[in-house]
Amino acid sequence: MKPTKEILTEILEEVRPLIGKGKVADYIPALAKVPANKLGIAVFTNDGQVIKAGDADESFSIQSISKALSLTLAMCLYKPDEIWSRVGKEPSGQAFNSLIQLEMEQGIPRNPFINAGAIVVADLLNSRLSAPRQRLLEFVRQLSGDTHICYDKVVAASEMMHSDRNAAIAYLMRSFGNFENDVIPVLNNYFHACALKMSCVDLAKTFSYLANKGTSVQTGKPVITPIQTKQLNALLATCGLYDGAGEFAYRVGMPGKSGVGGGIIAVVPGEMTIAVWSPELDPSGNSLAGTKALELLAERIGRSIF
Amino acid sequence: MKPTKEILTEILEEVRPLIGKGKVADYIPALAKVPANKLGIAVFTNDGQVIKAGDADESFSIQSISKALSLTLAMCLYKPDEIWSRVGKEPSGQAFNSLIQLEMEQGIPRNPFINAGAIVVADLLNSRLSAPRQRLLEFVRQLSGDTHICYDKVVAASEMMHSDRNAAIAYLMRSFGNFENDVIPVLNNYFHACALKMSCVDLAKTFSYLANKGTSVQTGKPVITPIQTKQLNALLATCGLYDGAGEFAYRVGMPGKSGVGGGIIAVVPGEMTIAVWSPELDPSGNSLAGTKALELLAERIGRSIF
Amino acid sequence: MKPTKEILTEILEEVRPLIGKGKVADYIPALAKVPANKLGIAVFTNDGQVIKAGDADESFSIQSISKALSLTLAMCLYKPDEIWSRVGKEPSGQAFNSLIQLEMEQGIPRNPFINAGAIVVADLLNSRLSAPRQRLLEFVRQLSGDTHICYDKVVAASEMMHSDRNAAIAYLMRSFGNFENDVIPVLNNYFHACALKMSCVDLAKTFSYLANKGTSVQTGKPVITPIQTKQLNALLATCGLYDGAGEFAYRVGMPGKSGVGGGIIAVVPGEMTIAVWSPELDPSGNSLAGTKALELLAERIGRSIF
Amino acid sequence: MKPTKEILTEILEEVRPLIGKGKVADYIPALAKVPANKLGIAVFTNDGQVIKAGDADESFSIQSISKALSLTLAMCLYKPDEIWSRVGKEPSGQAFNSLIQLEMEQGIPRNPFINAGAIVVADLLNSRLSAPRQRLLEFVRQLSGDTHICYDKVVAASEMMHSDRNAAIAYLMRSFGNFENDVIPVLNNYFHACALKMSCVDLAKTFSYLANKGTSVQTGKPVITPIQTKQLNALLATCGLYDGAGEFAYRVGMPGKSGVGGGIIAVVPGEMTIAVWSPELDPSGNSLAGTKALELLAERIGRSIF
Repeated sequence: MKPTKEILTEILEEVRPLIGKGKVADYIPALAKVPANKLGIAVFTNDGQVIKAGDADESFSIQSISKALSLTLAMCLYKPDEIWSRVGKEPSGQAFNSLIQLEMEQGIPRNPFINAGAIVVADLLNSRLSAPRQRLLEFVRQLSGDTHICYDKVVAASEMMHSDRNAAIAYLMRSFGNFENDVIPVLNNYFHACALKMSCVDLAKTFSYLANKGTSVQTGKPVITPIQTKQLNALLATCGLYDGAGEFAYRVGMPGKSGVGGGIIAVVPGEMTIAVWSPELDPSGNSLAGTKALELLAERIGRSIF
Repeated sequence: MKPTKEILTEILEEVRPLIGKGKVADYIPALAKVPANKLGIAVFTNDGQVIKAGDADESFSIQSISKALSLTLAMCLYKPDEIWSRVGKEPSGQAFNSLIQLEMEQGIPRNPFINAGAIVVADLLNSRLSAPRQRLLEFVRQLSGDTHICYDKVVAASEMMHSDRNAAIAYLMRSFGNFENDVIPVLNNYFHACALKMSCVDLAKTFSYLANKGTSVQTGKPVITPIQTKQLNALLATCGLYDGAGEFAYRVGMPGKSGVGGGIIAVVPGEMTIAVWSPELDPSGNSLAGTKALELLAERIGRSIF
Repeated sequence: MKPTKEILTEILEEVRPLIGKGKVADYIPALAKVPANKLGIAVFTNDGQVIKAGDADESFSIQSISKALSLTLAMCLYKPDEIWSRVGKEPSGQAFNSLIQLEMEQGIPRNPFINAGAIVVADLLNSRLSAPRQRLLEFVRQLSGDTHICYDKVVAASEMMHSDRNAAIAYLMRSFGNFENDVIPVLNNYFHACALKMSCVDLAKTFSYLANKGTSVQTGKPVITPIQTKQLNALLATCGLYDGAGEFAYRVGMPGKSGVGGGIIAVVPGEMTIAVWSPELDPSGNSLAGTKALELLAERIGRSIF
Repeated sequence: MKPTKEILTEILEEVRPLIGKGKVADYIPALAKVPANKLGIAVFTNDGQVIKAGDADESFSIQSISKALSLTLAMCLYKPDEIWSRVGKEPSGQAFNSLIQLEMEQGIPRNPFINAGAIVVADLLNSRLSAPRQRLLEFVRQLSGDTHICYDKVVAASEMMHSDRNAAIAYLMRSFGNFENDVIPVLNNYFHACALKMSCVDLAKTFSYLANKGTSVQTGKPVITPIQTKQLNALLATCGLYDGAGEFAYRVGMPGKSGVGGGIIAVVPGEMTIAVWSPELDPSGNSLAGTKALELLAERIGRSIF
């Protein structure tokens, strides 16, 4: 069955009672202020259709979803070995911002979607791009077709004010020789990427290349190769949902990436991308109602990679 | 493209030069004696065809591949909550036999495919079956259609002689209240399951239900439900390859389960199961040439879940 | 100033208000039943005087205090290298029964006073004594001059019923080749040692060799050499109070050993041994009022090794 | 027996063959260049006598020995609770610069002699002194009576160039709210303290207050109270020798503090302080020949706290 506006609307109503049972991210004030009852979903199919329901056009802080975008950019700029000698491809089995594993594994982060790994990717971008922050913004505007996308300066500044743990992570990697640039500007770029404001519709369109063998459905242009697309989806499926990747695979069965802003993108290879948004998080840091909505959608339309 | 005998034969020749670059498991003498140059592959399609090459009919010790079989049996006997309250669904990010994580997570193993998790599953089977060892054997003989499959008593006894670490794991779980039966008989059953001797053809046939929404292609009878099949494939994709699940997903892109005997089974949902065998292992404990063969096959026939 | 009955009585009254602020060990019922208001102290001086106050003649379960006795016996039976190749001499910085460190340090316990280390010592005694349990009892009866000392069979049996974690520890050490005998009988001896019932007076007399260069004040006979005495006191000072050794050195400033039965022995080298008993424990597992009593006594009589 | 020049000279000759069996610290070039065959010892008795042998008047980088000086200063400036709420008193059981424990214990370092703890002490000094670096220098010049003591600017600058791991430690503590000032200036002060150049004679004199109930033998003035002295000696005895405190207590039996420059100071309460220097280190980071020299001296003069 194909996803329709009716199905999406129905699903949102079904998951709405979950609001109140999770917890909005509150480690920075700018995120804590987001109304907990926001709820949106958007599907972008490989034939270019947008299907959406709820607050699908409202922008929110994409946070860690940006890690998949930064990695895509890095995959365009670097050979595989240049990336994978500096960051691993395995699930972490740990909290997303743990230093314990990083120390035990000698400064090589487990994967590009935990903080340490994403900071290495930011370091990679910094080494090869003259204006990485601007480049990422252009990239996203182009892929989404939405030229109004921008960084939320308040969020970025607020993250920078609470950056001690990420600074510790960066300095620890530097002490192991796995960091090339100055810590502060790299963190600043990293936080800006996290502070991208995008809507569900923006996200579903932006990531359409993941469902279409690497070619953007929106622009018709290749972003990465088919093999890179398969690899990126594999990384998302095993490592994209913090320490909840196994549960997400079990329940939803799609490659995906979540952010503490409450957004999740998911991919049905060959068919569509899906973006959901609900700010309250489960204990693993993934959107509570968002995950449930994806689970119901997977069931309703009979899609799963497994 | 469909897999053919020619493709399989070609692939085996391509990976054969890897023999000598891995390491045969040697923690028990019975495994260390297996000739390193064994190499086989078998595909079993959902329309009942067997395609095979190399030593595909020779039996070997399936070791941890049995963990997927035991879990399947447990999923038939227990409600989901009864299983998932005692064992998690997340990748471990640790060695397969580590006690560190088990202690930190209060005796709840991360997933059913690390040793601790599989021992919990053995404990579950022990609690509900009068003759779990016999039941598992019947299950496998039926699914494979091969009534000659049996336990390798020498391997099982040898494992039992080297069982101290697994005993430590079981006692640690007991100390947290996550173990119901006496440790020794449960370990004995667990080691017998690991000591099943099966060929690639046996394995491909036995696991056909994973590619066929839960119904065995061999017997035509349902083993588990379609939803359970999807869940089991999800667990295999995120946790089935020890601490190499991410790499396997990245390179091969199929749910799979490996054993230190050098076997791997992999699933193309809706189409086929594949079994390979080459005794030498990579540092993560997965068959070195076997993984490469699956990677080449995935590429050659253009199959992947991503 | 010399300790007197008046000083001891005064100190007990000063610490009595602490009763109610700690927690009696309750992991086995036999310990949980001990009245929380028991409070005793005994000093045994190198010139053979006993000074005591409160419940100093009442027997209690000495628990981990026995680890110092077992080690003393092992030091009589083995050359230093035979002991210190199997167990370390460093503080653990971890809970007394942690498996994490034991796994990271390849089955060599950090010191002989954490559970793992004491179990190795029990294994050593088992290898060289035909009746280790009887030998320990004779040893203690002789050193204390109290022939009524015995094992509390109920406590020993109860410990054995809750031995899963210690069994896990023993099996883990076996898996690293650091265990020579069968696990169960060694644990049984270990638990019997913990279940010794002794009074403060018994304890102060028994350990008099630690204050008297290795020669028992009670029997006048050498137990260990002067150099071994210095070494044993050093081990007690750095590792004798679980993860509270630093705090105990800071506040009390004497080598000591505590048990979860609420007893503590302390040594003023060249002068006296002191035993206190109060069943309620602080969060580190050391007697709350007992530690305070030793702190006050050290202050009052102006004794400390520092 | 009293220490004499003859005994000291004899001991140096006895330990000299150890030179070549350890490893000079080489993590910064300035330390790696120090000749490995330097060897000195100095005793300063409570009646004001200096006894010395070998290179006892030659200055070297005191490194972590400075941690005891900084803590002394902090104990003069702060109430106990203000210090001990921010840093613990327990041995770490870990490498001196590990972040693992620091993360598990929520940013509270185990004790003031591991790097994290010493950095907290530096932060404390920074908060309450207008010119902490100058104050420490005056303190040391006064206590030693040597007005030529200074910071080795090359060493301090070199440490600053290799400060990534310590920066990671400081930022991690900041993320837990256990750091008050800017990271860089505090680290700079910390590295300057480590870069103090002092001789064995300087060190023995400087620390004379530890053997004399808190009053400097050199100046005749109180530095800390008798009770603080006892506490500081207790901390040195349990935590002063990195992860070799137990071994040092076992073999030498004196409170002490070592540095990777190869120096060690040791205290015989009520009698004397001893300083040794030999640049090659054992695997725990303590001077190999220096420890042996102290062990022999303890034996020869029959002194030990145990």
